[in-house]
Amino acid sequence: GFAKVDHNRKVRQGFPEIIFGEGKTAAQIVSIMEAIKSKGDDVLATRVTKEKAKEILKYQPDFIYNETAHILFWKKEQQLPEKSSGYIAIVCAGTSDLRVAEEAAATAEFLGSEVRRIYDVGVAGIHRLLDNAEEIRNATVSVVVAGMEGALPSVVGGLVSRPVIAVPTSIGYGANFQGLSALLAMLNSCASGVSVVNIDNGFGGAYNAVMIDRMAGSEKAED
Amino acid sequence: GFAKVDHNRKVRQGFPEIIFGEGKTAAQIVSIMEAIKSKGDDVLATRVTKEKAKEILKYQPDFIYNETAHILFWKKEQQLPEKSSGYIAIVCAGTSDLRVAEEAAATAEFLGSEVRRIYDVGVAGIHRLLDNAEEIRNATVSVVVAGMEGALPSVVGGLVSRPVIAVPTSIGYGANFQGLSALLAMLNSCASGVSVVNIDNGFGGAYNAVMIDRMAGSEKAED
Amino acid sequence: GFAKVDHNRKVRQGFPEIIFGEGKTAAQIVSIMEAIKSKGDDVLATRVTKEKAKEILKYQPDFIYNETAHILFWKKEQQLPEKSSGYIAIVCAGTSDLRVAEEAAATAEFLGSEVRRIYDVGVAGIHRLLDNAEEIRNATVSVVVAGMEGALPSVVGGLVSRPVIAVPTSIGYGANFQGLSALLAMLNSCASGVSVVNIDNGFGGAYNAVMIDRMAGSEKAED
Amino acid sequence: GFAKVDHNRKVRQGFPEIIFGEGKTAAQIVSIMEAIKSKGDDVLATRVTKEKAKEILKYQPDFIYNETAHILFWKKEQQLPEKSSGYIAIVCAGTSDLRVAEEAAATAEFLGSEVRRIYDVGVAGIHRLLDNAEEIRNATVSVVVAGMEGALPSVVGGLVSRPVIAVPTSIGYGANFQGLSALLAMLNSCASGVSVVNIDNGFGGAYNAVMIDRMAGSEKAED
Amino acid sequence: GFAKVDHNRKVRQGFPEIIFGEGKTAAQIVSIMEAIKSKGDDVLATRVTKEKAKEILKYQPDFIYNETAHILFWKKEQQLPEKSSGYIAIVCAGTSDLRVAEEAAATAEFLGSEVRRIYDVGVAGIHRLLDNAEEIRNATVSVVVAGMEGALPSVVGGLVSRPVIAVPTSIGYGANFQGLSALLAMLNSCASGVSVVNIDNGFGGAYNAVMIDRMAGSEKAED
Amino acid sequence: GFAKVDHNRKVRQGFPEIIFGEGKTAAQIVSIMEAIKSKGDDVLATRVTKEKAKEILKYQPDFIYNETAHILFWKKEQQLPEKSSGYIAIVCAGTSDLRVAEEAAATAEFLGSEVRRIYDVGVAGIHRLLDNAEEIRNATVSVVVAGMEGALPSVVGGLVSRPVIAVPTSIGYGANFQGLSALLAMLNSCASGVSVVNIDNGFGGAYNAVMIDRMAGSEKAED
Amino acid sequence: GFAKVDHNRKVRQGFPEIIFGEGKTAAQIVSIMEAIKSKGDDVLATRVTKEKAKEILKYQPDFIYNETAHILFWKKEQQLPEKSSGYIAIVCAGTSDLRVAEEAAATAEFLGSEVRRIYDVGVAGIHRLLDNAEEIRNATVSVVVAGMEGALPSVVGGLVSRPVIAVPTSIGYGANFQGLSALLAMLNSCASGVSVVNIDNGFGGAYNAVMIDRMAGSEKAED
Amino acid sequence: GFAKVDHNRKVRQGFPEIIFGEGKTAAQIVSIMEAIKSKGDDVLATRVTKEKAKEILKYQPDFIYNETAHILFWKKEQQLPEKSSGYIAIVCAGTSDLRVAEEAAATAEFLGSEVRRIYDVGVAGIHRLLDNAEEIRNATVSVVVAGMEGALPSVVGGLVSRPVIAVPTSIGYGANFQGLSALLAMLNSCASGVSVVNIDNGFGGAYNAVMIDRMAGSEKAED
Ligand SMILES: Nc1ncnc2c1ncn2[C@@H]1O[C@H](COP(=O)(O)O)[C@@H](O)[C@H]1O
Ligand SMILES: Nc1ncnc2c1ncn2[C@@H]1O[C@H](COP(=O)(O)O)[C@@H](O)[C@H]1O
Ligand SMILES: Nc1ncnc2c1ncn2[C@@H]1O[C@H](COP(=O)(O)O)[C@@H](O)[C@H]1O
Ligand SMILES: Nc1ncnc2c1ncn2[C@@H]1O[C@H](COP(=O)(O)O)[C@@H](O)[C@H]1O
Ligand SMILES: [Mg+2]
Ligand SMILES: [Mg+2]
Ligand SMILES: [Mg+2]
Ligand SMILES: [Mg+2]
Ligand SMILES: [Mg+2]
Ligand SMILES: [Mg+2]
Ligand SMILES: [Mg+2]
Ligand SMILES: [Mg+2]
Repeated sequence: GFAKVDHNRKVRQGFPEIIFGEGKTAAQIVSIMEAIKSKGDDVLATRVTKEKAKEILKYQPDFIYNETAHILFWKKEQQLPEKSSGYIAIVCAGTSDLRVAEEAAATAEFLGSEVRRIYDVGVAGIHRLLDNAEEIRNATVSVVVAGMEGALPSVVGGLVSRPVIAVPTSIGYGANFQGLSALLAMLNSCASGVSVVNIDNGFGGAYNAVMIDRMAGSEKAED
Repeated sequence: GFAKVDHNRKVRQGFPEIIFGEGKTAAQIVSIMEAIKSKGDDVLATRVTKEKAKEILKYQPDFIYNETAHILFWKKEQQLPEKSSGYIAIVCAGTSDLRVAEEAAATAEFLGSEVRRIYDVGVAGIHRLLDNAEEIRNATVSVVVAGMEGALPSVVGGLVSRPVIAVPTSIGYGANFQGLSALLAMLNSCASGVSVVNIDNGFGGAYNAVMIDRMAGSEKAED
Repeated sequence: GFAKVDHNRKVRQGFPEIIFGEGKTAAQIVSIMEAIKSKGDDVLATRVTKEKAKEILKYQPDFIYNETAHILFWKKEQQLPEKSSGYIAIVCAGTSDLRVAEEAAATAEFLGSEVRRIYDVGVAGIHRLLDNAEEIRNATVSVVVAGMEGALPSVVGGLVSRPVIAVPTSIGYGANFQGLSALLAMLNSCASGVSVVNIDNGFGGAYNAVMIDRMAGSEKAED
Repeated sequence: GFAKVDHNRKVRQGFPEIIFGEGKTAAQIVSIMEAIKSKGDDVLATRVTKEKAKEILKYQPDFIYNETAHILFWKKEQQLPEKSSGYIAIVCAGTSDLRVAEEAAATAEFLGSEVRRIYDVGVAGIHRLLDNAEEIRNATVSVVVAGMEGALPSVVGGLVSRPVIAVPTSIGYGANFQGLSALLAMLNSCASGVSVVNIDNGFGGAYNAVMIDRMAGSEKAED
Repeated sequence: GFAKVDHNRKVRQGFPEIIFGEGKTAAQIVSIMEAIKSKGDDVLATRVTKEKAKEILKYQPDFIYNETAHILFWKKEQQLPEKSSGYIAIVCAGTSDLRVAEEAAATAEFLGSEVRRIYDVGVAGIHRLLDNAEEIRNATVSVVVAGMEGALPSVVGGLVSRPVIAVPTSIGYGANFQGLSALLAMLNSCASGVSVVNIDNGFGGAYNAVMIDRMAGSEKAED
Repeated sequence: GFAKVDHNRKVRQGFPEIIFGEGKTAAQIVSIMEAIKSKGDDVLATRVTKEKAKEILKYQPDFIYNETAHILFWKKEQQLPEKSSGYIAIVCAGTSDLRVAEEAAATAEFLGSEVRRIYDVGVAGIHRLLDNAEEIRNATVSVVVAGMEGALPSVVGGLVSRPVIAVPTSIGYGANFQGLSALLAMLNSCASGVSVVNIDNGFGGAYNAVMIDRMAGSEKAED
Repeated sequence: GFAKVDHNRKVRQGFPEIIFGEGKTAAQIVSIMEAIKSKGDDVLATRVTKEKAKEILKYQPDFIYNETAHILFWKKEQQLPEKSSGYIAIVCAGTSDLRVAEEAAATAEFLGSEVRRIYDVGVAGIHRLLDNAEEIRNATVSVVVAGMEGALPSVVGGLVSRPVIAVPTSIGYGANFQGLSALLAMLNSCASGVSVVNIDNGFGGAYNAVMIDRMAGSEKAED
Repeated sequence: GFAKVDHNRKVRQGFPEIIFGEGKTAAQIVSIMEAIKSKGDDVLATRVTKEKAKEILKYQPDFIYNETAHILFWKKEQQLPEKSSGYIAIVCAGTSDLRVAEEAAATAEFLGSEVRRIYDVGVAGIHRLLDNAEEIRNATVSVVVAGMEGALPSVVGGLVSRPVIAVPTSIGYGANFQGLSALLAMLNSCASGVSVVNIDNGFGGAYNAVMIDRMAGSEKAED
């Protein structure tokens, strides 16, 4: 009873329901997800720890858990992804950024976009990135995930002519100040075409990218 | 002599040259702009004060100055904008945000997108915004400009299902801390589909929006 | 013996004693509350965790615990609330803000005011708020609780012509910086008639509101 | 042309129009004020420097300028203030805070409330404040203005049982950080019944106070 | 082995050895203290938790533990305090500040000064402080401990003509930012004669006070 | 009229009147100073720029202006300084800190203390400081003024056994953040016996030092 | 699988592989280290807690664990350090800085440099440092580790004419803000020849120093 | 008179005198420079504005002014630079960083090192940097100057195996916070071998680089 679920907005926007799992108990998560599933709607929850997921999966073995991404979801079988001939590039700097990168990747796939993962291509070994330049350039949009000095979106932004959604992570220590260094770097990117979401917000990066990919997708689908 | 102009990038990305006028003298601005114009390319400079513009216009009366936007540009007559059946909504909260909003609007128009201005619709008089909801919803993408508490992108983000580029401004005083309050608010938006550029970066907001609008535009153009 | 209880102030101000439970042991809380109760005075403690409350309720089963609000109190039966024909609207943005909103609501009720709860009406789904505009407008004063971008008080402030007490919460992550984003947003509200209390200070929001409601209440009571 | 004046809000809320003069030219201020005056409505502008005021007064000698408050206004003669038998106490710490205190006082008087000024009663000479305690206690609400360590609202809050609106000022230097020290102190006040507005926001302090005073006032007026 | 103990400095300055217990194990604390004691020197350790103290006291039952202050010390019986006819006033705002205030008091007593405790006299109930004004005025120096808005040193500084050492504490929440609000307030005190030590540094406050008290003390002792 | 001069406090504390000249016009400064002088009292104003001083000295040629210190004062001839056989050491790091160091020195001399200046002894050339160690050690109290990394008070604090009042200055650039680097360094000094005043507050450093020197002075005077 | 190991960079730069152990499980650390070792390459991991080390050493008893440094490594016996006739001075302020200082020392030794440890020579007892001045002066480069006020690099920088790499530590409390005070102090050092790495980054300090020492070393080796 | 010039340090360290020109008048700069020149010593002043330089050059036409670098110097003709067969690479991101980059370059040349300028190679056009990789790799040390997101040192650090001195600049606006974004990025560089100096401190970058280059230089010179 306590929450006014905003069904109208979701429908109007063509996106299934997504739950923010942090600060919710396993019981709360499962009850919300089941309510949505019971109407035949897809549902996904982010920030679900392994412990909570285990508990939930006992009762709902048909839910799927992505351990790296901390994401739990359920998807109607028959439902086909909205066809798009394009794809989203999810680019990340280091292996420590994997949780956030996978939150983005799994969210984008759940929302129906094709995803290409280009991981561990941080700027301190620039050739790893350049070796993948072509694949990134051909994406409709890139989600670029990086912690520490947050330099990767600037380099990617210079390589591509499509939008870059930058996701700073809290990876680092000391003068990193929980992701502030990467956040400020990305907001100050000297490359055009870079916009930024909150620290560790892989979900938000994916959501923006899917919106853009759908536009491009429907375009190409009509070719 | 001193600067390695990155012509390649501009060409590759399909965007004309844009100059950051702040910290450059009138003489420097005019010499760079003329060099580009002399090759028959369009050129635009942001952050050109009225004083500098006056000086430049004496020598180059065919340049056009947008006083509110602090923007100076030159455009080849024969060149037709890349046709797009969509438009970008530039939404702003108060009249004090006009300079930044117009920097966005003038940049987007220069880059060939159609723009609709929905100004002075700050959240403290929410009906002004709601009266314009339809026009914002139909845009391919919105650039939402706001200072002080920076709340407008959150409300707009909830109304539309297309991307919102949020531009915080430094308008305010005291605990505004030169735009920090609006910046943090926008990064923490509870609406999905909002990404953020630097404080007062109307140019950046427009650049991201045009990238997106072109995708959508080519799509619709093919209808 | 160690504390100089300021009985005089409480009496002079017409407010019963309120204890800040954070950082106090169950034993300390119970001993202070019993001392006050033993004089026949009402007493309330905020920030009492479920664990401490359980322990205390074993010894004092006539105390009442509000689990959502983390509030424990005792009230003399015969005492009737100071009659007021008005009410306080407690408005909150999301279900994560519930603890703080309920701290405000329970405190205000304990202090003798009538409360109407308008919860889960965050600005990203603005119609949920507008559907409740009438009830908020008719309140003598509103306590508006929000985390993340803290935009709600600005919208409410524009709807009503009575005072709005804004309570930022620490709900959020990343660039939220433990409630700083909401706090700054509220201090910079472009709506007139909004004043702000400390992050997560539901108690303080309620206390201010009750002071105002009593003025309005006595007015109406005389009609 | 460019601005959507929100007449509806002003009427609905029973408050005349107030202009924020900072960042507006003398010409802009005078044209907005004349437009309002021409409809027979009262009008006031804050943050009008002496230079701008001089210029405006040449054309509109019936406008009144309060030099300390940096406030310019026009008021219809026949209009009587909404009768209130109460008053607002404007309390300030030092003579450097006068501009902000007078912005509050002049705004409150313009909005129809009676004001009592209790100035230069900073906490480092506590007896100056205590000598005025009675007058502050009898106010319906206090606006307490202080810079530097911002301690005054805490002491006043302990003396009175009516609401205190705290206005931090940017007076100070060094670790004052443009008013941050006073702002943080006031948000952390250990006295109940204190709420805070933005740094140097005398206008906001007064607006909140008048809202409260009107409630109390109508009450008393009915005695 | 690893540490170069700076015996020379201690001797030159006439102060016994003081250990900073935080981040040291019980074993490390006891071994340093025993080494000093074995030379017949007094020794005191600050920031010793109850758990560590219990462990240490099993082996060294002649050590004395002050639980509130988190202080453990050993003092030679025969040694008489350097005679001083003056005393230090330790003033604190609330009962939450007790740990820091007692760290100051116990340190000062250990260093040979007489201490008078004036506790729980926060500015929101100003008469509690004024009732003790005489005793504070007669002290050679005051150590004033306060968290939250940190207003107490300003009021005390205005009452006395001797030095005030202000000790901000980290007591508070939200916009307190771990003691920043109190620290900034104290650095901006409008009272003359107030200097400040680090947040929660009761030891530092006492050390400075004892230095001053010794000067005053020797003076009076010669009367 | 507007200011409640706190004569009582000044008398009670045995200190002449000191005016804060910043933000006051030459006319305001001269009128306050003459009012005090006319009662035969000494008077000093800090933060008086050369321009204002010139203007004032035309009307009051018997005032004395210390250009380095930005201090203007008047002192009764017949009045002899309160005799003290001790002295205050004013120590400063670099020539850029001179204005603040001289504000301290001139204030202390005006208040009747003997001052020894030990200037330009910053820690990057440690032997310059050590060459003066004896003179600093023999002072009753030291005022140590430093900008940039603010390291000097830590070194001085280790050399002496009397109190050190540390005055951070805003000298520096970049990560200096207007004196924040020096302020934080001094608050974290690992030397015991260091307390801190506000950034650039030479006056405050001197005031604290004179209070301490008077205690020590009266002591020695009685020898 | 998931990580693109940048072997090329390591080889090109002549440095063995170094693992950042924080946030990795014992299993992950051991698997990466074994993979490198199995190619006959040296390998070192920083930030390995005692618990993880114990677990790993059970399976790999030929790994060596430096408990103070939290460093685990394996080195081929036959491999001789690149000969250098110089050495690196690792200087640290207090015993609390030992973990970071030893991270630097152990890393430098692992990378083939000779190290001299000059520990516990903080500036509050300046003679301890001066007693070691000769040894520091003769180093090819110094790594200077300090927390709290971070003053040590400034003093060392003034004593030597070779580069100083400053490593701020997070040791301290209150206004230390997790190492910010030391970091800012070091960035503002008035001594020339000081550069700074991240808070607690002993590894980074050593890496820079070894690079420099190798240049100097090869020089001397050729004598 | 007032300053204790630290000749000893300069001699001991083998570096000529360098004056910090900011905050000094033309008269002060010229008098210090002449004093040093009169002893036959080289002398250089940083941060000398064009206006001051013009004034000084009238009296000392044999001084040389570098307008971009804001540097004024005098060098004895006969003195030959200490021979080094290596060189320092000064790398900068954009033309706005030129003042700082040239401060570094001119300082390094004055101190006797060979300099290669690789300018305008910011990361948003990565091929411009890669085209110069060989020249940077062959330098004994690189000074890398960048504002905004400060990403350049990370990319350079990954390309070279010699030390990188990173110099953040204050170039940028909004969330740049006067160079904070670049500073934090550089301190968090994921490339090994990067150390950082203060914002805009081109001088400091050069000084560190020359120290290192001399070591490498003498080495090679002996080949
Ligand atoms: N000094 C002030 N500080 C903050 N807000 C103000 C001030 N003066 C006027 N305002 C507000 O600014 C609004 C007018 O802004 P504007 O349309 O820019 O003139 C008014 O409705 C007031 O709510
Ligand atoms: N440079 C200074 N820094 C801080 N406080 C000062 C300074 N000069 C004077 N004061 C203080 O300011 C008070 C006078 O303030 P005012 O009445 O505004 O002139 C004096 O009593 C001093 O306590
Ligand atoms: N304590 C440390 N602090 C900073 N960087 C480190 C540290 N230890 C290792 N590294 C760096 O981290 C890299 C390895 O990171 P990873 O691949 O996450 O293990 C190494 O190449 C080093 O450059
Ligand atoms: N641009 C600069 N940035 C930082 N430090 C500088 C700069 N120029 C000179 N210095 C340093 O400042 C010292 C001289 O300071 P001063 O005595 O004030 O001229 C020199 O020894 C240098 O160490
Ligand atoms: Mg791009
Ligand atoms: Mg949306
Ligand atoms: Mg309102
Ligand atoms: Mg009260
Ligand atoms: Mg006093
Ligand atoms: Mg000492
Ligand atoms: Mg040196
Ligand atoms: Mg490298």
